[in-house]
Amino acid sequence: MSVADTLAEDMIAGGDPSWLLRETGYELLRESTFETRFALSNGFLGVRGGLASHLGACRAVPPRIYVAGLFDTPTPDSVVPELVPAPDWTQVRILLPDGPLMRCPDRSSRALTLDMRRGALFMEARQTCNAPLDVCLRSLRLVSLHARAIGMQVIELRIESGVSDLTFEAAFGPTDFELAPERAELDLKAWRTWRSGRSLAIAAAASLEVDGIERQPVMRGDLTWNWSWTAQPGQIVTFRRIIAVTRHHATDVHAGARARKELAAARTLGWRGILARHEAAWAERWRCSDIRVTGDAAAQAALRFAIYHLNGAANPEDPHVSVAARALTGDDYRGHVFWDTEIFLVPFYALTWPEAARTLLMYRFRTLDAARAKAAQMGCRGALYAWESADSGSEVTPAQTVGPDRKILDVLCGSQEQHISADVAYAVWQYWQATEDEAFLQEAGAEIILETARFWTWRAAPEADGRRHIRTVIGPDEYHEGVDDNAFTNGMARWTIARGLDVAALVQARWPETWARLARSLDLGEPELAHWREAAEAIATGFDPATGLFEQFAGFSALETVDLNAYAGRSVPMDVVLGRERTQRAQVIKQADVVALLALLPEAFPGASGGTNFDHYEPRCGHGSSLSRAMHGLAAARLGRAEAALSYFRRSAAIDLADTHVAIGGGIHVAALGGVWMIAILGFAGLSLRADGLAFDPCLPADWQSLDFRVRWRGRDLAVAIDGTTRVLRVALDRGAPMTVFAGGAAFVIAMDRPLTVEGVGG
Amino acid sequence: MSVADTLAEDMIAGGDPSWLLRETGYELLRESTFETRFALSNGFLGVRGGLASHLGACRAVPPRIYVAGLFDTPTPDSVVPELVPAPDWTQVRILLPDGPLMRCPDRSSRALTLDMRRGALFMEARQTCNAPLDVCLRSLRLVSLHARAIGMQVIELRIESGVSDLTFEAAFGPTDFELAPERAELDLKAWRTWRSGRSLAIAAAASLEVDGIERQPVMRGDLTWNWSWTAQPGQIVTFRRIIAVTRHHATDVHAGARARKELAAARTLGWRGILARHEAAWAERWRCSDIRVTGDAAAQAALRFAIYHLNGAANPEDPHVSVAARALTGDDYRGHVFWDTEIFLVPFYALTWPEAARTLLMYRFRTLDAARAKAAQMGCRGALYAWESADSGSEVTPAQTVGPDRKILDVLCGSQEQHISADVAYAVWQYWQATEDEAFLQEAGAEIILETARFWTWRAAPEADGRRHIRTVIGPDEYHEGVDDNAFTNGMARWTIARGLDVAALVQARWPETWARLARSLDLGEPELAHWREAAEAIATGFDPATGLFEQFAGFSALETVDLNAYAGRSVPMDVVLGRERTQRAQVIKQADVVALLALLPEAFPGASGGTNFDHYEPRCGHGSSLSRAMHGLAAARLGRAEAALSYFRRSAAIDLADTHVAIGGGIHVAALGGVWMIAILGFAGLSLRADGLAFDPCLPADWQSLDFRVRWRGRDLAVAIDGTTRVLRVALDRGAPMTVFAGGAAFVIAMDRPLTVEGVGG
Repeated sequence: MSVADTLAEDMIAGGDPSWLLRETGYELLRESTFETRFALSNGFLGVRGGLASHLGACRAVPPRIYVAGLFDTPTPDSVVPELVPAPDWTQVRILLPDGPLMRCPDRSSRALTLDMRRGALFMEARQTCNAPLDVCLRSLRLVSLHARAIGMQVIELRIESGVSDLTFEAAFGPTDFELAPERAELDLKAWRTWRSGRSLAIAAAASLEVDGIERQPVMRGDLTWNWSWTAQPGQIVTFRRIIAVTRHHATDVHAGARARKELAAARTLGWRGILARHEAAWAERWRCSDIRVTGDAAAQAALRFAIYHLNGAANPEDPHVSVAARALTGDDYRGHVFWDTEIFLVPFYALTWPEAARTLLMYRFRTLDAARAKAAQMGCRGALYAWESADSGSEVTPAQTVGPDRKILDVLCGSQEQHISADVAYAVWQYWQATEDEAFLQEAGAEIILETARFWTWRAAPEADGRRHIRTVIGPDEYHEGVDDNAFTNGMARWTIARGLDVAALVQARWPETWARLARSLDLGEPELAHWREAAEAIATGFDPATGLFEQFAGFSALETVDLNAYAGRSVPMDVVLGRERTQRAQVIKQADVVALLALLPEAFPGASGGTNFDHYEPRCGHGSSLSRAMHGLAAARLGRAEAALSYFRRSAAIDLADTHVAIGGGIHVAALGGVWMIAILGFAGLSLRADGLAFDPCLPADWQSLDFRVRWRGRDLAVAIDGTTRVLRVALDRGAPMTVFAGGAAFVIAMDRPLTVEGVGG
Repeated sequence: MSVADTLAEDMIAGGDPSWLLRETGYELLRESTFETRFALSNGFLGVRGGLASHLGACRAVPPRIYVAGLFDTPTPDSVVPELVPAPDWTQVRILLPDGPLMRCPDRSSRALTLDMRRGALFMEARQTCNAPLDVCLRSLRLVSLHARAIGMQVIELRIESGVSDLTFEAAFGPTDFELAPERAELDLKAWRTWRSGRSLAIAAAASLEVDGIERQPVMRGDLTWNWSWTAQPGQIVTFRRIIAVTRHHATDVHAGARARKELAAARTLGWRGILARHEAAWAERWRCSDIRVTGDAAAQAALRFAIYHLNGAANPEDPHVSVAARALTGDDYRGHVFWDTEIFLVPFYALTWPEAARTLLMYRFRTLDAARAKAAQMGCRGALYAWESADSGSEVTPAQTVGPDRKILDVLCGSQEQHISADVAYAVWQYWQATEDEAFLQEAGAEIILETARFWTWRAAPEADGRRHIRTVIGPDEYHEGVDDNAFTNGMARWTIARGLDVAALVQARWPETWARLARSLDLGEPELAHWREAAEAIATGFDPATGLFEQFAGFSALETVDLNAYAGRSVPMDVVLGRERTQRAQVIKQADVVALLALLPEAFPGASGGTNFDHYEPRCGHGSSLSRAMHGLAAARLGRAEAALSYFRRSAAIDLADTHVAIGGGIHVAALGGVWMIAILGFAGLSLRADGLAFDPCLPADWQSLDFRVRWRGRDLAVAIDGTTRVLRVALDRGAPMTVFAGGAAFVIAMDRPLTVEGVGG
């Protein structure tokens, strides 16, 4: 297999277009959208799909390169760490004697192709107008899913006509003041962050062949190569660069040694070996997580895109980082971690890649001390996680931000949006239900749930009315600040305390020694657990049995009602339309709040009250967050409203895939992508986790002829197939011990030689 | 006078705070606002007020440096030229052995002071926390108003305690791919644009003194200096850099020679001489243009700020450029020139700095061929100016843009917003009325007016109803595209044709040879002028004598009415609130349109119809443009509604001065600043230009105790003083022949020894 073959278009994804994202031409306004959408990531290295530098002189933003966990504060007096852009290892300059070679590439010849199956980005551009050389340039780029320190780039240049001296420069982009240089050698550079005590090392090797014969560079500097020769018609020039990146605490004085070792291992494999192992790693990810839909090609494409970015966002090997709100694909939200991870991503990982889910939860365990400190600051025991979290787990929500109207807004979420602590407990419990990972529960999970349950018991103070109230919070609906008894917060808090009691009972019964250790280290005993029991009952819920409605918070129903239909044409969020003050005084909801509670805890809604609440709150919601529609879609699908759910599915997918918008320039909305997966699997397939098995309650949209996917559950591999036309559900166990599956109102035991077929489900 | 003295705070503006803009501390979110507001400009060089690089490692946008007229297309296939950011000549790095010196400046010690009187920016920052050195850093920066090629920077560093090796690096910021390097020598660098055939040369000299003794650099590169020494307590380090910038057409092979010559002249003056001449040039500008208001300190501050930026925006020496929509202070609108210049800026320049006004109009004369070509493209004779203009005068309105909701929008203004051609004619006539510059009229002004009058005659085709209609245009109200008979466009077109006839008669009568030349070169004769006479009468106006209203365009009054009061809290424009489609179907106006016609041509409104139209259209206007409130304020003041006008004055001034907003990050709204001046002088003082003199009709807001200003008129210097309390107007002629002044319903002849005092005016 030659490089030319590898780069040839017919090799991409074996020619199957359903695995490809493709754009041709070049449009400056849409460039940042494409840079996000075509981003490569392996959860440690992220590279936006920027290819402007290949195309000659372009006044475009340089491609952003990210290294997970490389946080620093941007200014000396800032307290908010941000992900520092890393040195750009993808940069090359191909120069004629009088300037860049690719000064006027043929507009239509430029093609960008992301092969999602193989996690590789291909670029092609041709130039036929530019004396003295006509050329065709093709490139391949990847960050290895097999060895996450490794990135690789292959550029092939064919000289189609003309003769000219040519220089090929490969040098890293400038880091300017972003990082302090520590060390520079021919094959290695190391930097440290200015204030946060992190360091970064990059080792690199590069080569250039002309017609298959390697050339020696005419100049070599630190991670810099320069080749010069006379280009002739018919020449094929092949440039390859392999890099190895490591991130360290600055105390590690051998920052470069590991990078060199990773590079040496990669060079031993060679570029074909690197590519082969990377492809194999992606094949395994897709084997576990691919979803196939027939009858709705757009939904199929949306699911592939979502799963591609979800698999690229996590890194099971690094408990020091979690997935940021824009993963490693853009600058928005500065690399900070929100509830997005636990509520919108962990379900995917827990059921398709439990190793990744476990690591994400270990990040929360690692930051538990910071959460305890935050709770202590407000006079509570237990753990209150940071609304925005970077590497230490301290609260890093900025005090101010710039709104869509470019006004500076105060941000109170860092102190008031506390449901995050219940969300983390919720994710721990989902993971436990999906995996029964006893080691994790004993080492980390139990302590997280106990400490968050404890926090909520402290936080919900008993008052004169005999109830406990949680005052002065922000729920998921961030349009309303400083509210009392937010239904979502209180409902999740009650649930967390109840799970705290479950976990205490479970650990006491099953692992008495673990319990003894935890009880001692947490100073937790039966008298306190009795308090929890009382608190879980006493916390106000806002539920009115007469109407069947939860009140979103105390006083919400007395606020002005606004007919959102009158604002159907608007293209900005409702708080911008009405102004912040009026929105705060109105029943205008930023995102699913009671509906989110319904999506996460349907059992908290008695009788038909789920539908009642959905019908009440849906028309009040302005969907001012990219997370909102996913929750609505999941709740709608669970209520049996498949077409409404499909509409939410499509609009969630459109956030990153619709082409009329440049709003994704700041990065993919990875939680919305997780939400797309949730609507499909937890909604349309109706999968739910039970203590005693897995349940399915399918409800496919009319267009979806079939839905096929795999899940992992407590060490087992299952293949699930739902035929929407015949209304048949098939569940096959491909690996693991027999288990119980619930479907169509009955329980079945399946085994590897005994798949399940249930007729007359959903539809 | 030592450097320390120069930099000392008590020297700034002689201690008068009304001349100062000042900010202390450092807030990352507001930094781009300050960079705009504190920008320096002399109409050729623009430097945003960015000082982040002085403050050590900061992940902030580098300061933008502009050179007027340095346009290039950003990508090979783009047709829209943009102002190319120039190399940053302000950058320095002050380094300890382990990194930047100013790593943790005391937050509150950072002070930024713009001395508007002297056109100089001062910065101060202190660092007391950082072993090994405590320091105080002060800097002065200017771009010379005396010699516009020259920029100067002085940085003084006092070592307050500690001993350490210190390195001071002065190097230009990277230009990366923006410009192609052409030449690099120790004292000079030259670049060229990639595609537009412009070149740039910068010559520079720098020196560093420690305790008054000059040090030799330990390293010298191209425009790069490095000094190293051991810093000791008590040392005073003084760095000075002088640069000379020239812009050329690339065919000029001696690009560097003029830059070197300019630099040599500046070095001969020395830094004190440069400063002194620069201050003298600013003093002369302020003498001609300052406005003093008593009783309203905020209005005084707003006027000073406006006049500072207006005087910095123009360059009477360079007819190749005009003033861009954001002057030389930010990236928004890419350096393009709009009607803003002719309608909102020329009135200021014509009456305070006619040399600048003349050059701006010569820019339009220079681009007349491009305007003729644009008219010819649509089958018309005459001149249709580009809606957006860069250096050639060709149409450079981008076909698409990104809206405030980050959606990509099609832009039709480039083909349909044609009133620009009348606006240019209007400015030529204003200038002629203010100056009676006969040379200009004969050389350039007459031809502009004749060619635009000719265009409108062709454009307004006679139809079956016996009227001429102008179909498929966009008026100032850009919410409505492709409309017929826009009242502003048609009214200004009629007016332009009438002025064309006036100019023809004037030139024929006064300068028959000029007329013969023009008639020949333009192929213009009496038969065509007869057409003009008919056309000026026949163009539909949309005026309904029954109601006294102009209809904004044919069919406007049938559109949906929307109560804008219901949207009072909104923080984005109405088209974003309602969506573009609904806005197009509604009586929602982006900006003054009929009201703009009233502001520019009050004589077109018979009887009391001015007030009728104002009252009708004002509540329909969403003020979705920064230009809108200025027109409303001017019209309101002329209608005698001083308090309403003052409200518009304040809101126009707030666009660039309100601190809750970061929307000015893209540059000052120079037209809104011109509008602030217009409301004050043309509105509150009621100044109007007449063929036979200057008229005043004062109408001060109640708070304004007095309004004092100067104007230049046909070679004369006048001082005008309006006392709002006693209702006395005083006009003194300080230079020039006797002239007629109209006030209080009467005509007066004033002379240098015969000032005018009129009692009982305005109030």
